[in-house]
Parts: sequence; C-alpha cells; structure tokens
Amino acid sequence: MAIMVQKFGGSSVGSPERMRRVARRIAEAADAGNQVAVVVSAMGDTTDDLIALSRELNPRPSRREMDMLLSTGEQQSIALLAMTLQNMGYDAISLTGRQAGFHTDGAYATAKILSIDTGRVREELDAGRIVIVAGFQGVDSRGEINTLGRGGSDTSAVALAIGLNADVCEIFTDVDGVYTADPRIVKKAWKMPEVSYDEMLEMAAMGALVLQPRSVELAKQYGVKLHVRSSFNHNEGTIVKEEANMNKDMEKELIVCGVAHDMNVLKVTLFGVPDRPGVAGDIFSQLSRLGVNVDMIVQSGSRDMRQDISFTCGRDDRAKVESIMQSIVRQLPAENYTVVDTVAKISVVGAGMITHPGVAATMFKVFSENKVNIWMISTSEIKISCIIDEDEVTKALLSLHTAFGLDDENA
Amino acid sequence: MAIMVQKFGGSSVGSPERMRRVARRIAEAADAGNQVAVVVSAMGDTTDDLIALSRELNPRPSRREMDMLLSTGEQQSIALLAMTLQNMGYDAISLTGRQAGFHTDGAYATAKILSIDTGRVREELDAGRIVIVAGFQGVDSRGEINTLGRGGSDTSAVALAIGLNADVCEIFTDVDGVYTADPRIVKKAWKMPEVSYDEMLEMAAMGALVLQPRSVELAKQYGVKLHVRSSFNHNEGTIVKEEANMNKDMEKELIVCGVAHDMNVLKVTLFGVPDRPGVAGDIFSQLSRLGVNVDMIVQSGSRDMRQDISFTCGRDDRAKVESIMQSIVRQLPAENYTVVDTVAKISVVGAGMITHPGVAATMFKVFSENKVNIWMISTSEIKISCIIDEDEVTKALLSLHTAFGLDDENA
Repeated sequence: MAIMVQKFGGSSVGSPERMRRVARRIAEAADAGNQVAVVVSAMGDTTDDLIALSRELNPRPSRREMDMLLSTGEQQSIALLAMTLQNMGYDAISLTGRQAGFHTDGAYATAKILSIDTGRVREELDAGRIVIVAGFQGVDSRGEINTLGRGGSDTSAVALAIGLNADVCEIFTDVDGVYTADPRIVKKAWKMPEVSYDEMLEMAAMGALVLQPRSVELAKQYGVKLHVRSSFNHNEGTIVKEEANMNKDMEKELIVCGVAHDMNVLKVTLFGVPDRPGVAGDIFSQLSRLGVNVDMIVQSGSRDMRQDISFTCGRDDRAKVESIMQSIVRQLPAENYTVVDTVAKISVVGAGMITHPGVAATMFKVFSENKVNIWMISTSEIKISCIIDEDEVTKALLSLHTAFGLDDENA
Repeated sequence: MAIMVQKFGGSSVGSPERMRRVARRIAEAADAGNQVAVVVSAMGDTTDDLIALSRELNPRPSRREMDMLLSTGEQQSIALLAMTLQNMGYDAISLTGRQAGFHTDGAYATAKILSIDTGRVREELDAGRIVIVAGFQGVDSRGEINTLGRGGSDTSAVALAIGLNADVCEIFTDVDGVYTADPRIVKKAWKMPEVSYDEMLEMAAMGALVLQPRSVELAKQYGVKLHVRSSFNHNEGTIVKEEANMNKDMEKELIVCGVAHDMNVLKVTLFGVPDRPGVAGDIFSQLSRLGVNVDMIVQSGSRDMRQDISFTCGRDDRAKVESIMQSIVRQLPAENYTVVDTVAKISVVGAGMITHPGVAATMFKVFSENKVNIWMISTSEIKISCIIDEDEVTKALLSLHTAFGLDDENA
C-alpha cells in the first residue's frame, strides 16, 4: 500500500462545487488503495478577506495576531473538506497544524518547520482514514500558532511527505505542470514530463510560480518525488526529482529546459557611489532591515573612485525603497538614484549548462539580433537572468525558446 | 488592583465599528487600573454562515468536524480584537481556548469544562497585557477541539472568572440588564438592580435569554458575582449574586421578582396511554435518544387504567418529535396524539415564594379573571410556569406584572 500526500491550493477549494471536485480526486486516490494524507490551503479569497478586515482595525497589526487570524482559514478548509468526504461515504478526519505535529521556530508570519511528529497522522491513516491536514501552519515550543508565509502549504505538504516517507507528493495546481515557457505567450511551449529539483528551483524563483521555492529545496534535501499536476484533469503533470530526464524526445539533448520571465521587477540604481569597502554592505543591510527582498545586484566598474550600483526587488517594495533612498544618497554620499518599474526579468534555466558552455553567449546574441537591450545580467550554475524592458518580454521569450531548441514543432 | 473578566457576545463585535466600541470599553476598564481578561464570541453571523456552508457540503456533518470549523469564528474575533486594542496603544494578546487553559470533556458540540489552567492568562495579565480569550471552546485530553454549545461563551467567561478568582464578571449584552418582564411588552417593567442566582436561573431558562443557564449555575456554585449590562451605554446593569436584594424600593418586599415568557413552545399530548409502570420512561428515553430537549411534563389522572401525557419542547424539535410519535402510539399502544405550536409558556419567578405561599393561587386567579386558559402547569420552589395560548401572552404578562406589585408607577 502506497502512502500518498496530495496538496490542494486555495483556488481548488474556493467554492462548494470545487470542494466536491477535490474530494472526488482524493477519493479516487483512496479507492486505488493508497493511504492518503491531504494538505489544503485556505479557501479562495479567505486569507485576503481576513487581511483586509484586519487592516480596517489596525493598519500595522502584530505578526502574532495575524498568524492567529490567518491560521483559521486553513482550519475552516480542512473541516469542510473532511465533511465533504464523509458525505461521500469516506472516513476522513481533519487535523490542524498542531494536531498533525508541525513544530515551527516561532517566527510569526515566516516560520520554518523545525520538525514534524507524524504519530497522529499515521495512527489515523492506519485506522483507514483519509487525513486532511491544515497547510501553512504549525506551533512553536510555547504553543503559539505560527504561519509559514504565503504559499507555505507547499512546504507543509513536502514536510508531511518526508515525515510519512510518502511514495509521492502530488501538488495540484490550475496548470497542467511545468512548461518550457509561459504557454499563454509562447504557443510552442510544452509541458516537461520531468525536471530536476535545481531546475525547478530556478524556475520557481521566477515567473513560473508553480511551486514555492522553499518546498522544492526541502523536497531536494530529502529526495521527495513531487508530481505537479492539474486538479482539473487527469493528465500526467511534471515530475520533479533528482535526476530528471526532461527531454520530450530522448534523442535530443537539451541544454536549456525552460525560459522563464517575471514582470514583478523594480530596478533601482545608485549613481556615483564612493568606491570604498563596506558601502554595499551599508546599503543592503538598510534595505534588509526594512524587509525589502533584493534579488539581483550589479556593481559597475569604478571610474574616478566612484561606481554605480543597481539592484532589483519586487514592485510591491517600491514604497519601502523610496522611503530610504534619499537618506542613503546623503549618507554615502552618492550622486543620485533612479527607480524604474518598466523592466522585467527573463531567464534561461537548465542543468545542462554546467557541462555546456556558450549558453550566455547564445542568449546575448539572440538579444542583440532582436535589438533587445540588456540592463542587468546575473548568472548561477544553471541559470542566466537578464533585466530587459518589459515591452520586449514577448519577443525575447519567443526568440530564446526557438534559439535553445525548445519549440514544439507540433504545436 | 482588581481582576475583571468581561464577556462580549457576537453581535457586539459584528462590524469594525462595533469592534472598536468594544475595544474602547475594554480600554476604559484597563485605564481604571484593573487587570482585564476578555472573553469574546464569534463575530455576528460568522457561526451561522459557517453552518450554512457546511450544510451545503454535508447535510449531517460530524460533530468533531463542526467543532473544528466553528471554533475558528472565536479565533478570528480574538485576533481582531487584540489588534484593535494594539492599534489604540494598548498591549493586548489573544489566546485560543487551548492556550487559555480550557480543558473539556471531549463531548463535541456540547462539551463541559473539566478544569481551567490559568497559568498563561495570569502570566500575560501580570506582564501588563489585556488578555483576549476565545469563548465557546476548549480542548480535550487528546488535543481535540471541543465547543461548549451555543451561548457557551457565557460559561467560558464564568469559568475564567473562577480560575482567576476575579472580582467581577461583566456580561455585556444588547439590553440594560434583567427586567421584571420583557419591556417591549410590559411598559411598566423595570430593571432589577440585583437578582439571586436561582432567580436568574429560572429567568434564564425562559424567554429572558440574557444569560446561558449553565453559566449561572457555574457562577452560583463558585459564588462569582455577575454584572449583566449593556455594551451600548454605561448604565449600571443587574448584579447576579447569592443573596440578592432585588427590590427597587427597599421598603417594599417583593415575593415575585419577574414575569417571564417563552414563545418557543411545542406542546405534545399522548391520549389514552396505558397506566402501567415504565410507560413514561419508555416515551421520554426515546425522545432523549433523538436529542429532543423536553421541558415540562404533565401526566393526567387515570381513567379506565388509561391516562393522558403531555410534554413541551422547543418548536425546532418538531420534526424529531413527529418522526417517532406514530411508532410510540403503536408501541404503547396509545389512542392518539396531538402536536400544538400555538402555545407559550409564562412564568412567575421569585425567591420570596419559598416563604410566601399563595403565589400559585394568585396566578391562577389572575388568569381566571382575564379568561386565560391554562393548558399545563409546572412548579419549582421559586417558579410557577403555565402553558397558555400564545395570543394571550401579552394580556397575561401585563396582568401578572400588575397583580404581583411589579409595575413601575413612574414608567
């Protein structure tokens, strides 16, 4: 008998009709003879509604009280999903994060899972029950409720799969799996049957937000096989595992597995920053204290003992950034700064890059041929990212997809 | 420094505006130098909305899952109320039933509080915090969430007051206190400054649903002083305590402290029931198994070894009652049965009855003079209740209120 963990997001359980569809999906897995543990998020807009309500009462609520509030969303989902399964004749039981044994580190709103004690979940599974677990939450050593941050239910599911030594962790989404590029833009994009953890990580950190990066890291660390698939159909999705054979066509070796893009980019540049040790540390520790999540950082070569420093972050951090740039300019002192929100990030990802040099060269050549201006570049072992103007994203995606041999000629 | 427990019901926190008003009320108590612990119910219609949603997914949901679902309502209220206080500059913290130390007996939906461990609450109070506790809930020895049944937040508040050895437990409602009769009907009714636990119990079990009877019983058992007052004004309400001087005018000794009525009455009569031992036990154990809450029971004198048995219950139990009356009639066998929902219960309550005979006689005389037909009678030491036709309730209330000297001549 296989042990299966299934994870359903909030939009999958956003209405009674959807809740029933999810329940049928779970029932199928149980009928097939599996022991099934399910992780579910808060229904549809519940979390956003609760946040809006809290903002009316306190524009800057404490993180502890927000966790107290938001964790109710998952608790409602699990109870309703268990009831739905019971109504279909299945023996199901819901468990809160605490009851399911999720121990967290006490960091409200951004908690990490320290350990998971699956005793109760196993007991219920062994009693023949389908176990429905609240995602996104755990309790710390004081019994305080912590949430794992947005999208934390993916991480809950992977942690539960690890704790149960599950055979597979199915992540249900509203897309069929992981594509070589956004199929809404790139018509010749295709669904990868398999992808490695590292590739998924690089994809996940970008536009293709199918999975929380943290959950992929955790899955990689413990070797949990993930199956990203649609809750709307029974198609095979994308398997995420250690050694992925991501080729559609076994004979064709692909160096790049996908081209991702991210429109949520704010580019900030400080001009004429003094070229002395500690300057970058100064700037980025101030941003970090404000909670600004800095992504790419590029430092230009020095001229006259002065240099330019550019970085990117999400557009929702704009107010925080603007709040301190003036004072940073004065402190350093720098000459000036600009904040630009009309750019986007485009990345090519592929484990094959490690053994195949020249990917960057090809990428830049494609950009040059298509007259796409590159504002910033950053590279990792299996990813190359460029910041370009946002209105050139479509052109760049299509041409890179073709240039790296990803086009599905049957599409 | 006094320790004060305040309890606010769901309608008191049903909107952001109301939530802020409640927070100001709590803040006043803290500003006055009290240590304040607050018990709050789920906001407005939250519980009803969750019940409606659950019914869509499962018409007969398990009690465990309902408790899992419904307990989120209070958890949302406490977090939002704590945030509201924080926004006003007060140090406040919310605690779930579990965190506040409520240990229950495991009876889902109708749990009893076994004990309360106020360690955490005291710790937070001593740290100078206002503590906001989720009413209506606790956890059993397995860590399962139990709810105390509708209105259980009153009981939570009294239990917390006991655990903290609080100086007073203020119960905020949308009425000013406990009246001698429903002031919407009886214009000359007045608010009693004090009432005894027993009197309150008899009133509470009836139409005047200001307090949960269970909470009054618990308060009586431990001698907790209750102050029933309005959350809309600062008027003194009604104090519920052991030895109450319930007179408005000290020189005027009142035997009856109030006249209560209850329209939610269903009267069921079984005609021609065999007059043999065990018959009543048979009938009422069958009703009890169905969860029908039987109130009054009257058995007529025997004729030809047969008798009539009448009982009353709430009108919402009608379907359950009807579902077994036919089979009861066949089993006994009885001759016939009737179910009547056009009756109401009217009661006079007063601790003075114990030492003053003749209250029943006065009551029946008033009914007779006013041509009010009595269908059933039941008496306790401090209460006499009669079932009468519902369209005679107003006439009966007014004439009893006058006859027992309760009219406020200044009204």
